[in-house]
Amino acid sequence: MTSCLSGKVCFYEVVLRSNKLKMLAAILTVGDEILIGQVVDTNSAWLGQHLSEIGVTVKKSWSVADTHEDITLGLKQALAEADIVFMTGGLGPTKDDMTKKAIADFLGVEMFFHQDTYDRIKRIFDRMGRAMSAAHDDQCLMPVGTQILTNSMGTAPGMLFRNEGKMIISMPGVPYEMKAIMTEEVLPMLVAQVDTTIVHKTILTTGVGETTIENELSDIISTFPSFLKIAYLPSLAQVRLRLSATGTDKLLLNNTVEAFANQIIEKLGEIIYGYGDSSLEKEIALLCHEKKINLGMAESCTGGHIASKIVSIPGSSAFFSGGFVSYSYESKVNLLHVNPATLTTYGAVSEETVKEMVDGTIDALKVDVALSVSGIAGPDGGTPDKPVGTIWICVGNKENKVTYLLKAGKDRSKNIEIASIYALNLLRKFILAQ
Amino acid sequence: MTSCLSGKVCFYEVVLRSNKLKMLAAILTVGDEILIGQVVDTNSAWLGQHLSEIGVTVKKSWSVADTHEDITLGLKQALAEADIVFMTGGLGPTKDDMTKKAIADFLGVEMFFHQDTYDRIKRIFDRMGRAMSAAHDDQCLMPVGTQILTNSMGTAPGMLFRNEGKMIISMPGVPYEMKAIMTEEVLPMLVAQVDTTIVHKTILTTGVGETTIENELSDIISTFPSFLKIAYLPSLAQVRLRLSATGTDKLLLNNTVEAFANQIIEKLGEIIYGYGDSSLEKEIALLCHEKKINLGMAESCTGGHIASKIVSIPGSSAFFSGGFVSYSYESKVNLLHVNPATLTTYGAVSEETVKEMVDGTIDALKVDVALSVSGIAGPDGGTPDKPVGTIWICVGNKENKVTYLLKAGKDRSKNIEIASIYALNLLRKFILAQ
Repeated sequence: MTSCLSGKVCFYEVVLRSNKLKMLAAILTVGDEILIGQVVDTNSAWLGQHLSEIGVTVKKSWSVADTHEDITLGLKQALAEADIVFMTGGLGPTKDDMTKKAIADFLGVEMFFHQDTYDRIKRIFDRMGRAMSAAHDDQCLMPVGTQILTNSMGTAPGMLFRNEGKMIISMPGVPYEMKAIMTEEVLPMLVAQVDTTIVHKTILTTGVGETTIENELSDIISTFPSFLKIAYLPSLAQVRLRLSATGTDKLLLNNTVEAFANQIIEKLGEIIYGYGDSSLEKEIALLCHEKKINLGMAESCTGGHIASKIVSIPGSSAFFSGGFVSYSYESKVNLLHVNPATLTTYGAVSEETVKEMVDGTIDALKVDVALSVSGIAGPDGGTPDKPVGTIWICVGNKENKVTYLLKAGKDRSKNIEIASIYALNLLRKFILAQ
Repeated sequence: MTSCLSGKVCFYEVVLRSNKLKMLAAILTVGDEILIGQVVDTNSAWLGQHLSEIGVTVKKSWSVADTHEDITLGLKQALAEADIVFMTGGLGPTKDDMTKKAIADFLGVEMFFHQDTYDRIKRIFDRMGRAMSAAHDDQCLMPVGTQILTNSMGTAPGMLFRNEGKMIISMPGVPYEMKAIMTEEVLPMLVAQVDTTIVHKTILTTGVGETTIENELSDIISTFPSFLKIAYLPSLAQVRLRLSATGTDKLLLNNTVEAFANQIIEKLGEIIYGYGDSSLEKEIALLCHEKKINLGMAESCTGGHIASKIVSIPGSSAFFSGGFVSYSYESKVNLLHVNPATLTTYGAVSEETVKEMVDGTIDALKVDVALSVSGIAGPDGGTPDKPVGTIWICVGNKENKVTYLLKAGKDRSKNIEIASIYALNLLRKFILAQ
């Protein structure tokens, strides 16, 4: 923003500039459906992540009910603790427009009919060949003083209000609409006004727990400068490490993050599988492209979960031929030509069986490398020597096979997810070594 | 609670009883990782859902940073608006125990070492053959006056505090630990103290949008008594309708919910596929068991996602033989014996191909019923007459096949999920008709 067309905007810019380096934000989520747990609020995490990446600190977040009283009280409390309040929810066509009325009353202004919004919604409906309802007319009512934030993904626009040097940004609760308004309208505006830089680097690990990693890194972390932080984000069988350096000298921040990241990478070694927003399946896709390897798989207890992770990667048809969900005894024999004697002697959950499943997959699909999994996901089906959670994994080609015995827990869905992660990591390492 | 062993507990019970019908709760989530969006807070939704089911209203929820100041301020604000505050987070062994110190200071009490907790943690570590660290010793420090809530899933116990007739319940942020403490300790205690009854009935629909359903039901909803509410929970290609009746006369509530549910069921007809916490895959599992049907599938663009949904159901091995992820052209020909001429004439994404995929699956797996999907999930691969989102589905047996052409959008992961839901629903209807 270089122009200064109104006194109000100029005043606001001055306030923000004097606040640079410590712009505090609050998130105010509106909706009974959040409080009674009908929907999980994923908007706050998305907002927190994208605001912290540009140097805006989320100080606090609130969820309040869909009533005039709760929204205005929430706004008052949020504005007392923050410079910018991000509101989501309460703007949809099927709900009472509580958020807009509450904001108007909080600011002490009237509502007006915004013709441009009406015209835009009408164009969308005309294109779809549908008629606008009265509920959509209501979406065109705005508090006086609203600065419209275009919603490229839906009918309810975002709104920006300036009040006593602070800002209120109100957006629909539908995640992709909120994200579009933030990405296209709000974040670029804020980036132009914040001078703090945050440099991040995320290191992705698998196979070792958070506490062990923290202990391994304690010597390195004790030498961190004060502007460098590390955060651990554990999920099933994985831990992401996020380094964040905050300040104004971008070169210094970059160099510091790089230097300490290198120390961490050297220390942790092969438990690291990637960086940033990568994933095991993305790494495998890159490796298969690079090494021109064709992939197939045979899944028993994971039931297609591993294949669906691979297929989630756009363009995976270039290296992924397909696979089998060989869930039954018969399918292992008929489709994968596992020797019935192997199944009776060693059982379907055995090292011998997963090896033969790999061979059968390579033969049937004519692929270079195959993966197989067979295990007892639970909750039933365990025996004294093969309890629930016993899962055999094999990865290999015609010449060479590696196997892994995973001893997981008793929870079926967790076992399937953990087995999938271990299997993908075994596959990644195997391809890396080719 | 019928006994009264201490004046404090009795006082508290009296307060709660006088408050019955309107026990208000607040949720206070502690942790920077929530505010910066490293993790999505799913605990609040779980708490909101389970508390509202027993008649406890969640008035508001907060997320605050991991600092002493933010936690104590949050506690003060939450206790000002609610009778019970549910806190999650800040108790783990690798984090500073900010929550416990903040609660102790807020209540004006000291910390003490809780030997029973130490002994319990030591037993867990002995069993795993691991040594306790100093961080685990810290987990045994508690504010004086703590009532321990046993954590059957982890080392950090839950804690209950009584303060001026109100309650503070602090639990770990790890979801399955929090859920165990709530389910085994907190909810039974609260149920015994709340006299309000809430009767719910959830109706599951697929294939029609929220606004259309709302319009269809408007006449019925306009005749609802004031104690009956309906909520819509839309997700991809599905809408759940939840009827809730609140009051003290359980028979009246049950009858009212039943009567209006029946009107809704009659009105909405075949878009309803189940009730309560069912799912399409659970309904299919029940139908396959009942009709002794063996199932197989061949997935192209959904890449195993549908099979993994079926396998997520415990005991699915009894009716699910397995399937193919026939992702490549060759796998469709070699494994499923799709006629190469069909592929060249009509394309891999065509009604003819999905029909042959069903036949090939039935032959290869010797199953009664098979499902097949072939489509362009995107983001690339579309053509003018088969744009991204064009997905063919077929369900059938030897004699009879039904097909469906889904025209989805441009988002790969959404397309895969929507195609899976449409395919499962087509499968459900087909089996229902057998």
